[in-house]
Amino acid sequence: MRQFVFEDITSEEVARRTGVYTPLTDSVRQLLDAAIRTEVDPDTIRAAGELIDRATAMLRSAQTDGPHGVRYTADGTGMPWGNPAIGIRNAIAPPMVVTRDGDRLVADVVLGAAYEGPPGLVHGGICALLLDHILGEAASAMTGTLTLRYQRATPLGAVHLEAEVVATAGRKLTVRGSMSDADGITVTAEGIFIAPRLTMTERPDDREGP
Amino acid sequence: MRQFVFEDITSEEVARRTGVYTPLTDSVRQLLDAAIRTEVDPDTIRAAGELIDRATAMLRSAQTDGPHGVRYTADGTGMPWGNPAIGIRNAIAPPMVVTRDGDRLVADVVLGAAYEGPPGLVHGGICALLLDHILGEAASAMTGTLTLRYQRATPLGAVHLEAEVVATAGRKLTVRGSMSDADGITVTAEGIFIAPRLTMTERPDDREGP
Repeated sequence: MRQFVFEDITSEEVARRTGVYTPLTDSVRQLLDAAIRTEVDPDTIRAAGELIDRATAMLRSAQTDGPHGVRYTADGTGMPWGNPAIGIRNAIAPPMVVTRDGDRLVADVVLGAAYEGPPGLVHGGICALLLDHILGEAASAMTGTLTLRYQRATPLGAVHLEAEVVATAGRKLTVRGSMSDADGITVTAEGIFIAPRLTMTERPDDREGP
Repeated sequence: MRQFVFEDITSEEVARRTGVYTPLTDSVRQLLDAAIRTEVDPDTIRAAGELIDRATAMLRSAQTDGPHGVRYTADGTGMPWGNPAIGIRNAIAPPMVVTRDGDRLVADVVLGAAYEGPPGLVHGGICALLLDHILGEAASAMTGTLTLRYQRATPLGAVHLEAEVVATAGRKLTVRGSMSDADGITVTAEGIFIAPRLTMTERPDDREGP
């Protein structure tokens, strides 16, 4: 398994990189939406495709070998930038921006065409993706069991998410959360999450054995 | 709520459109991966961003007003092309290609950098997205309750999905499914799905009332 990676960079460097990557990902996100909704003729689609392939070749001229991984700065700031729910480098992610509000984590997200399941509605699996993520982040743990109850369909548009740890027993945490729109809750979630035994690189004090 | 839309087009026209949209979406998917993994300098990123924005403007010169919706040909062939799990026009979708194998639905998907949660592993919410979709497709219904049991982490790479209706009671269907890798099952899923009362346009015989 790939390990968590520490990079010895300052918070200024994190901010600088964020400033470089965020506009790129926003551009890819816009393109992704346009590719779903476009009605232009086949020649224009081919011409757009050529521009996209040129952009991809430029970006691939230097790239990591495998996936992005989850990187941490020396002071422990996480950079889960490839994450499909919250990653600032992943155009799959809306991205969901999670903040703390007392004991709860909360997030407000606007879901457009790219997240549609039934016509005009958020795909149930996208609700699951975002809820799994915010519940997991509340627990700082990996999912053991997750139960989702779809109270009613979630229309595309603005949604609000919440998650809160309601019980802890050793490495096992019970977390509850919900997705809602302006009219109230659309999906509730309850999960058992298991806190990982982390293996960190470049942290000699955490290494096991000789 | 947006309704299901019928388009009176032939299967040849569906094939022609598939041939136009599939390469475009593949290009966007490659770009999405490259944007996560690139290590080029900020100037190259900005130059790539300009190409992407030009492609987006070309595609947006004619586009649908809202989301794509789910369209059907006159003979009932579904075109859920904007769908984030299976849509051939949505670069979020791997895409998952679902086929029937006796009573079960099955799919084989390769999940790369864009689907990463913990380092080297598939995001638990992506497992949930794909399982919700294939279970819902087995039921031809919308999710009521979905329970996911993560047996162990799913490494990035090739995964196999299955889903099967195990019980039916009126509009309520119980569906079971799983995700697995070469070493066996990683996630199991069980859901209660509710078959919709469809409202169809351009099908006078299905319309209610005067």
